[in-house]
Amino acid sequence: MRIAVDGMGGDFAPQEIVRGAQSVSREGLASIVLVGDEEKMKPFVTDHANLTMVHTPVCVGMNEAPSNALRKKKDSSMNRAFELHKSGEVQAVVSAGNSGAAMAFAIFTLGRIPGVDRPAIATLHPRMGEGVSILLDAGGTVDCKPTHLAQFALMGNAFAGSVLGIDSPKVGILSNGEEETKGNELTREAHSLIKELGINYLGYVEGTDMYNGRTDVVVSDGFVGNIALKISEGVADFIFKFFKEGIRNSLKARMGYLLLNDLFKEFQRKADYSETGGAPLLGVDGVCIICHGKSNEKAMRNAILLARKFVEKGLKESINETMQDYQSLQKVKER
Amino acid sequence: MRIAVDGMGGDFAPQEIVRGAQSVSREGLASIVLVGDEEKMKPFVTDHANLTMVHTPVCVGMNEAPSNALRKKKDSSMNRAFELHKSGEVQAVVSAGNSGAAMAFAIFTLGRIPGVDRPAIATLHPRMGEGVSILLDAGGTVDCKPTHLAQFALMGNAFAGSVLGIDSPKVGILSNGEEETKGNELTREAHSLIKELGINYLGYVEGTDMYNGRTDVVVSDGFVGNIALKISEGVADFIFKFFKEGIRNSLKARMGYLLLNDLFKEFQRKADYSETGGAPLLGVDGVCIICHGKSNEKAMRNAILLARKFVEKGLKESINETMQDYQSLQKVKER
Repeated sequence: MRIAVDGMGGDFAPQEIVRGAQSVSREGLASIVLVGDEEKMKPFVTDHANLTMVHTPVCVGMNEAPSNALRKKKDSSMNRAFELHKSGEVQAVVSAGNSGAAMAFAIFTLGRIPGVDRPAIATLHPRMGEGVSILLDAGGTVDCKPTHLAQFALMGNAFAGSVLGIDSPKVGILSNGEEETKGNELTREAHSLIKELGINYLGYVEGTDMYNGRTDVVVSDGFVGNIALKISEGVADFIFKFFKEGIRNSLKARMGYLLLNDLFKEFQRKADYSETGGAPLLGVDGVCIICHGKSNEKAMRNAILLARKFVEKGLKESINETMQDYQSLQKVKER
Repeated sequence: MRIAVDGMGGDFAPQEIVRGAQSVSREGLASIVLVGDEEKMKPFVTDHANLTMVHTPVCVGMNEAPSNALRKKKDSSMNRAFELHKSGEVQAVVSAGNSGAAMAFAIFTLGRIPGVDRPAIATLHPRMGEGVSILLDAGGTVDCKPTHLAQFALMGNAFAGSVLGIDSPKVGILSNGEEETKGNELTREAHSLIKELGINYLGYVEGTDMYNGRTDVVVSDGFVGNIALKISEGVADFIFKFFKEGIRNSLKARMGYLLLNDLFKEFQRKADYSETGGAPLLGVDGVCIICHGKSNEKAMRNAILLARKFVEKGLKESINETMQDYQSLQKVKER
C-alpha cells in the first residue's frame, strides 16, 4: 500500500512528520510518498527503504485562510498529496497541516462521494469500558442543514460498523437533553430525518453519553462538535494540571503519585491524541486522515497506520455503498 | 432576609430540600419559607426557628413539559414560591425542580428586567488558579438571536463584576476557534454587536479557555452552553471512574490513592455542584437560583446561601442598571 504524507504540514514539520513516516516505511508497513520541500525534509531521512519524495517548495500556512490556500496554493505539499491520491498513485493521504485547508483541498481535488453534501471530520474518543466513541462533525462544516446531519449519521454508522467493526452501532444526535421536546431547530428537523434511515438510532444523546459508552456515534454540526472536542480537552487538562500542582506541593502526594503512576500512564495512553493519530475525513472520495497540528513522530506514525487500516477495511467503499442506498431511498420518497 | 424554597422540587424532595433549608434557618442565616405539601414536608422539620411553611399540594413533575406546567400548575410549590417573591414577601427563590418550568414560571410570575429579551442560566465552573468561570446561557434559551447573546454578555459582565467582585471581567463568545473567521452565523453577528458594548471583550474563546482561566464570562446560546456543561460532567466522570476502577484492581494503586486522598478530596470540593449549590437565572426581575435535580442537603444549603449573597450584593439591581444603559445606547443608535 502507498500512502502520501504532507511533509510540510504541522507545527513540528518537517522533522516530526518525516520521522513518523519513516518509522512506518522502515518497517515495511506501507510505502510512503513524502510530499514537500525536499531540501528541508532530506536532513531527517536516514532510511530510504519504501520511501520516496515528491518535491514542491510551496506549503500552506497553519493559520492561512482555506479559501486563500485553495486559490493560490494548488502546488502546495498538501494539495500535491491529494493529487497523487486522485491519480491512483497512493491509496490515502495523511496531513497534520491547516485542517480547514486540508478539507478544502480534499473536496476540491478528490471530490465528494455521490450523495454527500458535506464531508465530516470524525474524531475518536476514549470512554468507559471498551472501544471508542465517534464524534462527527468535529469541525468541518460550521453551519449545517438537517440533511447534512442525516448524512453524518449514515457515514458515522458505516464507519463504525464496517471499519471499526462495531455491531449495529448506536447513533445519537448530541443535544441538550434526551427528551424529544429538547434540541434546537436544526436537531429537531434532523431527528425526524434520521429516524427514517433504518439505523440503530437512539434519538437525542447528551455530552455524558459520549464518555459513558451509551453511544457509539455522536452526530452534531461542526460548530457544536468542535466545541465539544475542545471542552473535553479543557476539562482533562484542568484535572491533570490540578493534580500536577498538588503533587509538586506535597511529599505525601508525590509518593502517592508514584504508586499510581501506572494508572496515570494508562490514562494518558487512552486520552492522548498521538495514540489515536488523527481523524478521518468522511465523505470525500478517498481516505484522508487529518492530524492534530501539534503532531509528533508517534502521532504521525499512528495516523499513517490508521490510514492503512481504513484502506484495508474499505472505508471509502463502505461510505460509497451507504450513500448509494440513501440516494435510492431519497428517489423513492420523491416519487 | 427571607428566601422561599420550593420544597417539592428535585429528585430527593422533600427530604433533602427540607433538611438543606433547615440547616440555614436553624443557624439564623436566613428566614426560610418552605413551599409545598405540608404533610409531606413536616416529617423532616425538626426545628421551626426562622422557618415557616406555605401549603400547596400541587407540584411540577421533573419531566413535565414547561408549557404544560405553566398552563395547569399555577398553584404548584414552584410558582407559589415565585408569587411570594413577586409580592415582596421573600427576596429570593431557590428550586431544584424542573428547570425549564422554573424558568417559565420565573418569567411569567416575576417578569423580565426591562431590556432583557431572554433570561439566561449562569453556571459557575471551577478552573485553574483562583475564582470561577461563568458560562451563560447554560440551557435557558435553545434557539438564540444575536441580540440575545449580546444581552447575555452584558448580564454576565454585570454579574461577574458587581456580584462576584471580578475587576473588569474578561468576556468571550464560545466558538470553534479564536480567529474572527471562525464561528457560525449566530456568533458572527453577535460578535459585531458585543464589540460595541464597551466591556472587556476578548472576542471568540475556545472550550479550553473556560478551564484555563483565560476568560471569566463565556457566552453561548443555551443549546451549546448546555452541551458544554454536560460534556464537562461527562469527561470528569469518565476520568474519576477510570481511576476508581484502576484502584480497585491494584493494591499498589490503592495505597497511592490513600496518599493522594487530600488532593482527590480538594478536587471534588472544587468540582462538586453541591458545593456551588446552583445557578442564578439572570434577567428575571428578582433573585432566582436553579439547582441540579439531584441536589442533596448540602447542595440546597449552599444554593440558599448563594441566593442570600446575591441579594446582598444587589444582583437584580446591577443587571437592571446595565440593561438601562444598554437601552439608552440602543436608543441613541436608532436616532
